[in-house]
Amino acid sequence: MELHGKNIVGHERSAEGTVTFRALAPGRDQPLDPQFHEATDAEVHAAFERAAEAFATCRRRRVDFAPFLECIAGEIEALGDALITRAAEETGLPEARLLGERGRTVGQLRMFAKVVRKGSWVDARIDHAIPDRKPIPKPDVRRMLIGIGPVAIFGASNFPLAFSVAGGDTASAIAAGNPVVVKAHPAHPGTSELVGRAIRRAAMAAEMPSGMFSLLHGTSERVGLAMVRHPLARAVGFTGSLRGGRALFDAANARPDPIPVYAEMGSINPVFLLPGALAGRADAIAEGLAQSVSLGVGQFCTNPGVVVGVAGDDLDRLTSTLRERIEETAPGTMLHRGILEAYERDLQELDGSSVVTLEARSRETPRRERTEAACCLLSTEAGDFLADRRLSREIFGPSTILVRARSREQLEAIAAGLEGHLTATIHGTEEDLEEHASLVSILESKVGRIIFNGFPTGVEVCPSMHHGGPYPATTNSLFTSVGTAAILRFARPVCYQGFPDAALPAELQDENPRRIWRLVDGELTRE
Amino acid sequence: MELHGKNIVGHERSAEGTVTFRALAPGRDQPLDPQFHEATDAEVHAAFERAAEAFATCRRRRVDFAPFLECIAGEIEALGDALITRAAEETGLPEARLLGERGRTVGQLRMFAKVVRKGSWVDARIDHAIPDRKPIPKPDVRRMLIGIGPVAIFGASNFPLAFSVAGGDTASAIAAGNPVVVKAHPAHPGTSELVGRAIRRAAMAAEMPSGMFSLLHGTSERVGLAMVRHPLARAVGFTGSLRGGRALFDAANARPDPIPVYAEMGSINPVFLLPGALAGRADAIAEGLAQSVSLGVGQFCTNPGVVVGVAGDDLDRLTSTLRERIEETAPGTMLHRGILEAYERDLQELDGSSVVTLEARSRETPRRERTEAACCLLSTEAGDFLADRRLSREIFGPSTILVRARSREQLEAIAAGLEGHLTATIHGTEEDLEEHASLVSILESKVGRIIFNGFPTGVEVCPSMHHGGPYPATTNSLFTSVGTAAILRFARPVCYQGFPDAALPAELQDENPRRIWRLVDGELTRE
Repeated sequence: MELHGKNIVGHERSAEGTVTFRALAPGRDQPLDPQFHEATDAEVHAAFERAAEAFATCRRRRVDFAPFLECIAGEIEALGDALITRAAEETGLPEARLLGERGRTVGQLRMFAKVVRKGSWVDARIDHAIPDRKPIPKPDVRRMLIGIGPVAIFGASNFPLAFSVAGGDTASAIAAGNPVVVKAHPAHPGTSELVGRAIRRAAMAAEMPSGMFSLLHGTSERVGLAMVRHPLARAVGFTGSLRGGRALFDAANARPDPIPVYAEMGSINPVFLLPGALAGRADAIAEGLAQSVSLGVGQFCTNPGVVVGVAGDDLDRLTSTLRERIEETAPGTMLHRGILEAYERDLQELDGSSVVTLEARSRETPRRERTEAACCLLSTEAGDFLADRRLSREIFGPSTILVRARSREQLEAIAAGLEGHLTATIHGTEEDLEEHASLVSILESKVGRIIFNGFPTGVEVCPSMHHGGPYPATTNSLFTSVGTAAILRFARPVCYQGFPDAALPAELQDENPRRIWRLVDGELTRE
Repeated sequence: MELHGKNIVGHERSAEGTVTFRALAPGRDQPLDPQFHEATDAEVHAAFERAAEAFATCRRRRVDFAPFLECIAGEIEALGDALITRAAEETGLPEARLLGERGRTVGQLRMFAKVVRKGSWVDARIDHAIPDRKPIPKPDVRRMLIGIGPVAIFGASNFPLAFSVAGGDTASAIAAGNPVVVKAHPAHPGTSELVGRAIRRAAMAAEMPSGMFSLLHGTSERVGLAMVRHPLARAVGFTGSLRGGRALFDAANARPDPIPVYAEMGSINPVFLLPGALAGRADAIAEGLAQSVSLGVGQFCTNPGVVVGVAGDDLDRLTSTLRERIEETAPGTMLHRGILEAYERDLQELDGSSVVTLEARSRETPRRERTEAACCLLSTEAGDFLADRRLSREIFGPSTILVRARSREQLEAIAAGLEGHLTATIHGTEEDLEEHASLVSILESKVGRIIFNGFPTGVEVCPSMHHGGPYPATTNSLFTSVGTAAILRFARPVCYQGFPDAALPAELQDENPRRIWRLVDGELTRE
């Protein structure tokens, strides 16, 4: 399958611009063919114009999006090895990981197809009229969620499939009934094109109007900002850096009509080691931590960047095992040179601090030409950590900093001083947990997910998952970007008052033809 | 009951500042005693510090907020005539209206108490572990909604009870488990103090920690901005002008850590008259419109500011009846001089346009000293309306503009050109509605609530109500400020992974001790 390097605007290829770029192969440090055409402002405009038309058409026709989502999953699978090969070249990620990620990607698409088929996600509510209520009659009022309109989505570099062109944002936005305009991440434009073409084929097979999907390329901020500022864009989904996410958030809020930005921007995912766990499982925790820290070369947003424990023999033992494991960890190829350079710069800055000790790093020397990063373990004292906010900054890559607390109070002070994060992890016995209920209570207001005796990497895709958290983990702590609840980001309630039954959407008709769960006169029912 | 004119910070009175102001009696155009003390920055800070402490305490103690909400309702009722008398003086609203509004206010508080007692609002979701799942075990994951933290709430001038100190924002924020810091509207500071003292008494009776409620006074923007910018504020609820709401929204988004602002900022609530309705019920619709336009001297956010119909004899008949009814409508006292002056200025500007005709105004002359406004009917042609955006601006007060369309296309073009609004209304026969399905489809993306054969004023407080809409109706079209779903603005999901049952909140424990509805392994159940 030859790549064409063009944008996909609705069902059409488009390459109006003169600016082009090529992907780099991080494992080889050389550009890959073909050249990709950066989208022009006119192409951004065309994508949103078509998206708005497609949205209106689908609303009028009350289109069912489940078949489209399933078709996308099938078309991605049909890409076969070509997709995995190109993704591996562009990202440096190993094949096994990419196969797993493809499984997750098609799994998410099919999960959202199921959510659409079940139909209860629309949170239908019906309150019947009471014409003889005093002093005034009660009207018949019904509401449900509908799509918000065209959504601008930004592919993430660290999940070239599951959080990119056909990733969770795209799947949930389409499931809610919205067209999407996706900005391909410039680090994997070929992977993006392959997936984009799969979606285009699916759109045609599922008889979607042209405009339900567009894919735009670009290395500059211009394309992304033009998307967020476009008058027809109704919401934004983004996974990436704090700098990038905040820039889009600010642009969206500066619009004459601000639109919501759901940006997931990273996290240090603190791990708290309570005494019972340290006493009983120091080695096992160290093994697990080393794996979690180095997983995907530390390029997960749930990477555990800070480990806090009360100083003592048990923590020393854990540290010593962790040191060994980190040294044994082979350097890994990072997604692109920019990420590697930022990682090294951040590490150097931390290492340069007089209060930070470099405990260990991969014994093997990273190969520069393969864009490799060494795994690192740093350490510091809780007092120093509390005094210097720079020590708690996220370092994107395979490193973590061990913080030695002198007391339970210091442990809690660290928790209380945290900014918002995606996750926090507690290792402890059940007695520890009971004893440290106040720690849990503090963390509940700081993070989106609290893990007990596990590791933060590995985000289960299910209805109860919450992958989100207070700022700066995300720009909106009320929503998740993983799991079925992600659909709620792209839907808004509409209320129908006094409508004749036949004029209502099926979800709100008396007969409940879709057999969905509804809140009828205050009670949940499927009748 | 003598008013003290002080701020209420936690359980204490506070008057540290030297800036004072008095309320004006719009019906008499003279200041009322006592003097009120504008809150200082230190008082704002103290209120949020206490609120954050109260939030932490309540989270730790897993406090039940239903009794507090019910106590507030009881204490407001116990204020008796004193509240109604003061509110009537400060707002110029008639006693009957204020009695109704008090009923709605205590009704809302009790409704949210019920929501809290029922408990299912937390949207609990449980996915059980599958330890032997391949390739990796599935962890036990559970999530629910919890309070977001201290909420800054701004009392609205046009609902001195139902959207003020103990209004819907306060009730829903507390129901979600949050302390509130309320900014009293300076047009009714005495009413605010009375209600604030009732809440304070309720907080003490329900053994709430000091800080669950604070009330701050101020006429300047400084107090409000200091609240929104305070580092411990976690969300903002506001009902008022576009200018005011946008200023708070911008300030909240410019924070180092942006917080959500739920601002409900008004709407022109367009009314579409379809041919069948015009032919069959022109007079009845005119009667209803005149009442809806003049209700509360036009100071409802759901006031119908634009009426669109296809020109012809039927529309002429409706216009003629409407003209009579408007002329017969007595001028009414507006909430304060500022609102009256803005109303007159806006009307004058519109009346000055060469394409607008003044069809009718209250025959009786408004008394300036009573801050009275005349009811007005204007008219224009659809072509002119479409060409000049100023004609579709909200005029806050008892006026409406009748727009004569020449075709169905023009009618739909007007709908398509609308900004976001709270409501749209359609008058028609069932055949009209079927015929104009595309109009409904357009309006679904423009407004939060579509009313068929009714009038937009009168917002039912129930689970299916959606009082919201795309910008500029609100700053967040995903949420409602009226009805039980309003609680969702002030709660965020937290996910617990691998927790022992005893360490989980009751809502997520296996036994389901609270008997709430939960999504367990993808299925809704109460077991």
